[in-house]
Amino acid sequence: MINIGIVGYGNIGRGAKKAVEKNADMKLVAIFTRRPEQVRKEVKDVPVLHNDKAFLLPRGIRADVMILCGGSKKDIPVQGPQFAAKFNTVDSFDTHADIPRHFQQMDSVAKKKRSVCIISAGWDPGIFSLERVLGDAFLPGGKPYTFWGKGVSQGHSDAARTVEGVLDARQYTIPIEGAIQRVRAGETPEFSKREMHKRLVYIVAEEGADEEKIRGEIVEMPEQFAEYDTEVKFISREQMARDHSTYPHNGLVLTSGLTGNGNKQILEYKCQLESNPEFTAGILVACARAAYRMKEKGYKGAFTLLDFPLGLLSPHSGEVLKRRFM
Amino acid sequence: MINIGIVGYGNIGRGAKKAVEKNADMKLVAIFTRRPEQVRKEVKDVPVLHNDKAFLLPRGIRADVMILCGGSKKDIPVQGPQFAAKFNTVDSFDTHADIPRHFQQMDSVAKKKRSVCIISAGWDPGIFSLERVLGDAFLPGGKPYTFWGKGVSQGHSDAARTVEGVLDARQYTIPIEGAIQRVRAGETPEFSKREMHKRLVYIVAEEGADEEKIRGEIVEMPEQFAEYDTEVKFISREQMARDHSTYPHNGLVLTSGLTGNGNKQILEYKCQLESNPEFTAGILVACARAAYRMKEKGYKGAFTLLDFPLGLLSPHSGEVLKRRFM
Repeated sequence: MINIGIVGYGNIGRGAKKAVEKNADMKLVAIFTRRPEQVRKEVKDVPVLHNDKAFLLPRGIRADVMILCGGSKKDIPVQGPQFAAKFNTVDSFDTHADIPRHFQQMDSVAKKKRSVCIISAGWDPGIFSLERVLGDAFLPGGKPYTFWGKGVSQGHSDAARTVEGVLDARQYTIPIEGAIQRVRAGETPEFSKREMHKRLVYIVAEEGADEEKIRGEIVEMPEQFAEYDTEVKFISREQMARDHSTYPHNGLVLTSGLTGNGNKQILEYKCQLESNPEFTAGILVACARAAYRMKEKGYKGAFTLLDFPLGLLSPHSGEVLKRRFM
Repeated sequence: MINIGIVGYGNIGRGAKKAVEKNADMKLVAIFTRRPEQVRKEVKDVPVLHNDKAFLLPRGIRADVMILCGGSKKDIPVQGPQFAAKFNTVDSFDTHADIPRHFQQMDSVAKKKRSVCIISAGWDPGIFSLERVLGDAFLPGGKPYTFWGKGVSQGHSDAARTVEGVLDARQYTIPIEGAIQRVRAGETPEFSKREMHKRLVYIVAEEGADEEKIRGEIVEMPEQFAEYDTEVKFISREQMARDHSTYPHNGLVLTSGLTGNGNKQILEYKCQLESNPEFTAGILVACARAAYRMKEKGYKGAFTLLDFPLGLLSPHSGEVLKRRFM
């Protein structure tokens, strides 16, 4: 039995709890959070403890792996090294540009403290990263394309929420279907950002707010929106709650390359998710299994999905995998 | 520079030669074959040697990894252990039921002789196996589906060729589009073999052969054809040469599962290949890079794609992968 702790109880933490329950070789021993009082109202079947308690665990609680389910901006950069000093960890740290730094930080703590830390293990970064690397390795000179959506982007929703007069925002990233079709058909175009994705933002505005001003500030926001065609729609608080409270997401990685004397080869990995955080949680939980086994085998340090044998993710033995999955 | 030898010069061997040429960190040092005289007519830029010469290499030729490109029925079971005793090897051994045995055989030689042998590294078995394992690990209780085609199956073509009166045969495996659509739409049906694939066989018959008798024998052949709807078409030798000399292939792995309180999650890996053997060769060549690095790091034994860190397949360093591919 692998003893699992969950750190942070937002959407991914909730998904991780449900995912652990579906894996017969695991047991959830505790949830750690900054707001145990609140979480206890929702969770009755597992101890809910303050984060700080993790470092002096109550008698009878032992955690083999901590699943870090906090945010990539503020939580994981702080909690990651703290937990890595005492536990094996997995996280889905997803600020792409900061992955090398996060890796270094976790690796240096984990090597010193002999723990195993699997980082950036979601679907992107994570599985999509793996598929990009495989496509590039198998089809040298090939061209990789990643399309996201339709789905909610938390980062872009947060950005829209910073605009004055905005009470709530939900941003959908939408891939341009025609662009996907061109790549699937074997073309290898150079796309601008605008040619691959568009953005749709639902806004709940303060009463009396200037909608045109809000629209303008969002659409022209550099980095987040300016390079895309962005549509802004104003809705009521009730509409937001009714129509935009789930987190579906799709995405695909396409690699198009030539082999031999010009034979076209196209690889495609696609996910169609009714719940983005629950799928991310499913990956994290499988990685928790791998981290546990790696620790048993004497590994130490930080690892991405590119850095350890992926058979370790499976509940099945190597022998069963060879017989039934190969 | 990684020095590569190719063993066997059929379609996959030819593909491997072209793939090595596309990888800047590799050099093809020799082709080994049972028929060097013939292959020399086609290959002028690389030494072509008899298989036996591999075990006492001419001065100046050094091979870090041997890519075994022979057939899975007769060649690899014999050549595999022979070459593993002296070299690191990669192969795409594809008789699914015999993979555990092939693994054992290669592993015991490789462990003793301290070589690294990557086995069954094509697209199925190989990448598709990996995707089945990932889908199963991330979506416990989910249902995996593998569809092959449209594409030529060498095994079924060979089987059709054993029928009396048949001069040549080419068998296409064709997935049932409606079945794929049902899974993509989120259904999880129990399919019979007949409901997932059909078979189309092109036959060149001997002059005066009884076509209806041939058709009957093929369609009713147990294991190969009887469980499928099989169509048999008779064509001329010229039509066979003109229309059926290339090896396109498609295939997909779909995993459909539920998370949380019934959220549907669907993963799909698809390849669309104009040349099946050239794509297989691309995988083998990337695995040759991994085998070389694993040997340097002190690994020994046999490995499938589930058993080593897949970042080792890439020409890029771990640092570049983290920065540019994650």
